[in-house]
Amino acid sequence: MTLEAQCRTTAAAAKRASQRLATARGDAKNAWLQACADAVTSRAADLLRANADDVKAAPEYGLDAAAIDRLTLNPNRIAGIAEGLRQVAALPDPVGEIIDGGLRPNGLSVRKIRVPLGVIFFLYESRPNVTADAAALCVKSGNAVILRGGKEAFHSNAVLHSIVAELLPKFDLPRDAVQLVNTTDRAAVGHFLKWNDLIDLTIPRGGESLIRRVVAEATMPVLKHYTGNCHVYVDASASLPMAEAIVVNAKCQRPGTCNAAETLLVHAAVAETFLPQVGKALTEYGVEIRGCERTRRLIPEACPATDDDYATEFLALILAVKVVDDIDAALAHIDRFSSKHTEAIVTADLAAADRFTAVVDSAAVMVNASTRFNDGFELGLGAEIGISTDKFHARGPCGLRELTTTKYIVVGSGHVRG
Amino acid sequence: MTLEAQCRTTAAAAKRASQRLATARGDAKNAWLQACADAVTSRAADLLRANADDVKAAPEYGLDAAAIDRLTLNPNRIAGIAEGLRQVAALPDPVGEIIDGGLRPNGLSVRKIRVPLGVIFFLYESRPNVTADAAALCVKSGNAVILRGGKEAFHSNAVLHSIVAELLPKFDLPRDAVQLVNTTDRAAVGHFLKWNDLIDLTIPRGGESLIRRVVAEATMPVLKHYTGNCHVYVDASASLPMAEAIVVNAKCQRPGTCNAAETLLVHAAVAETFLPQVGKALTEYGVEIRGCERTRRLIPEACPATDDDYATEFLALILAVKVVDDIDAALAHIDRFSSKHTEAIVTADLAAADRFTAVVDSAAVMVNASTRFNDGFELGLGAEIGISTDKFHARGPCGLRELTTTKYIVVGSGHVRG
Repeated sequence: MTLEAQCRTTAAAAKRASQRLATARGDAKNAWLQACADAVTSRAADLLRANADDVKAAPEYGLDAAAIDRLTLNPNRIAGIAEGLRQVAALPDPVGEIIDGGLRPNGLSVRKIRVPLGVIFFLYESRPNVTADAAALCVKSGNAVILRGGKEAFHSNAVLHSIVAELLPKFDLPRDAVQLVNTTDRAAVGHFLKWNDLIDLTIPRGGESLIRRVVAEATMPVLKHYTGNCHVYVDASASLPMAEAIVVNAKCQRPGTCNAAETLLVHAAVAETFLPQVGKALTEYGVEIRGCERTRRLIPEACPATDDDYATEFLALILAVKVVDDIDAALAHIDRFSSKHTEAIVTADLAAADRFTAVVDSAAVMVNASTRFNDGFELGLGAEIGISTDKFHARGPCGLRELTTTKYIVVGSGHVRG
Repeated sequence: MTLEAQCRTTAAAAKRASQRLATARGDAKNAWLQACADAVTSRAADLLRANADDVKAAPEYGLDAAAIDRLTLNPNRIAGIAEGLRQVAALPDPVGEIIDGGLRPNGLSVRKIRVPLGVIFFLYESRPNVTADAAALCVKSGNAVILRGGKEAFHSNAVLHSIVAELLPKFDLPRDAVQLVNTTDRAAVGHFLKWNDLIDLTIPRGGESLIRRVVAEATMPVLKHYTGNCHVYVDASASLPMAEAIVVNAKCQRPGTCNAAETLLVHAAVAETFLPQVGKALTEYGVEIRGCERTRRLIPEACPATDDDYATEFLALILAVKVVDDIDAALAHIDRFSSKHTEAIVTADLAAADRFTAVVDSAAVMVNASTRFNDGFELGLGAEIGISTDKFHARGPCGLRELTTTKYIVVGSGHVRG
């Protein structure tokens, strides 16, 4: 069988599985998730052995220390995978949720309910826990999933996949609801992306170049996250200790995440007091500051910021800083450079907060809170499959509901249109 | 200026207008809609004169009698356009609607609100009233719109556009919120479809070939409707008079619409009684029946149906008919041939109704009601911009809410992540 025929068989099996899964009971799905959590724990030794093979091969794939760390499993991380599965089991089932409806004047009963999308093609890189997370979120939301992990995690993913897939039939769920593409041939991805007759949604998780390639080739919708160039604006009326805590948290708590801050904008009226303070605090965290001219007068160790810096998602301990004359200048800067992911204002002024939240066109707008709160768990969705920087279908953190579509169910008693 | 530069200027102006419109007040938008309705009425003579020019030129463009009828305005239809504008004014404003939210355990206040998508590129064919409808729905939902009507309606669209656009500044709304692409050069469409930096959504309304061309070229999301191959299944337990009324209504009330029925499936247990009855009723309406072998034994005037017939959206007084052994055979036929638009079951059996609504994967599933009820007005959304046969973002009738995206607004008091 050619690679294309193999991929087609996988996709067709996923489609059939998705049709059975669409009407599966919530308690069966939850019991499966709990059993998966138990099995991940009881098969920890297998998992660690497979993972050791991956870690051993990692330098061949050119993985750096940080990537090898993300790839590596240990008993604590395995417990985390099991805990993640139990958390998804505990979330409300989105399938069948009635989100709108009522009785029409003519007596027709209308319900708009959530139903699964169908088949999801999920591409991801090194971290093996994503295999379990993605399987859990897709199946819980009634979707079949085709998993395509990174070659670096080949062995770990194979064990995790076998654990979750083998348990499906025990709960009367279709085994093909979770399939792993177990070839490292890149051409497989191109095949799946052609088949919008079998695959309803593709979710690529990884670097921007992977995502751009997927978007260019895909014939079906893609749920994606490009970049998180997030801003914190410190208004004239801000409590400066609060502003400092928020800036330090947004930049330093986990600088490699998409909701970390990349640019600080400071109102000119407080720049002289605030910038030396915050500059000192950031420097203690090892942050490199790249500032405008006014910033550099107040933080002498800052180097000059270019427009490229303002446009960059550093994902590192680097912060671009600019002094602005007023909130309008801050809004204009954000409009020009933001990737529409997350922006925050620190202010005590109600009108400034209202204006900022009304005008900024981003997935999440924070008032007196760190940009780091744009996250599925923090916003109350539970586990997320990713954060969308698109406006279509889903924007911001995507949990179980974002993996569904809707269906109208209309019940009459012989109604015809006049 | 080249055509491309002209189009780019239009799109950039739309983007700027959309940013102002996003924070416009609902009462300003509604007052504008009422003023548009008044102006359409008071400028009826201009409109009729322009429309007469279009109708005169119509044979040159190869329009048939039905298309010329759709193009033609008269005092009644102009009153209908004005009434449509007033209906949109009366609908609730979707912008700012809080659709989720609450207090997180750490005290963060989270609101998920509806916000406009931004800029919509709207392509449509002959009927001039669509110019007013689309402008009304887009502006009411806070979006700027670039209208590209058919060349057949060039003069009518120009007058309608000038009426609605000229009134925008009177209500402090940006004039460029509604722009008309007033060139008949087809290359203009290709230019707009390239610019996902300025245009957030394209909506093509027209024939399938137009829609497929737009989908192939567009770099931004497309909200679209391919075909409506809708089914009515008459179950063994159906009230046969009810079934006849529903089948006749679904096929004959407006056969040219997407929610008209194209195939009738009849349970074998009632075929002998039902098919001769319904065959007679349909024949009286001039319906041509194409049936399976069992159908043709019961309706001798029926001609043979091929798989092509079962796959076709006739949009005409033609009905494909098949006798099925049970509900599973009906579901399998629908799974194979349906375009996932609208399917109906006629039944008195609760289990059959539940199974049909659970298994059929269509935008709307009807029980004991005509497929013709899959419509924005009938389902309670008010005016619709189209019916989506996609699963992503919006499925089924698309009203004001479907022209929005969401934004999280998160308010803390110095919250940072631990």
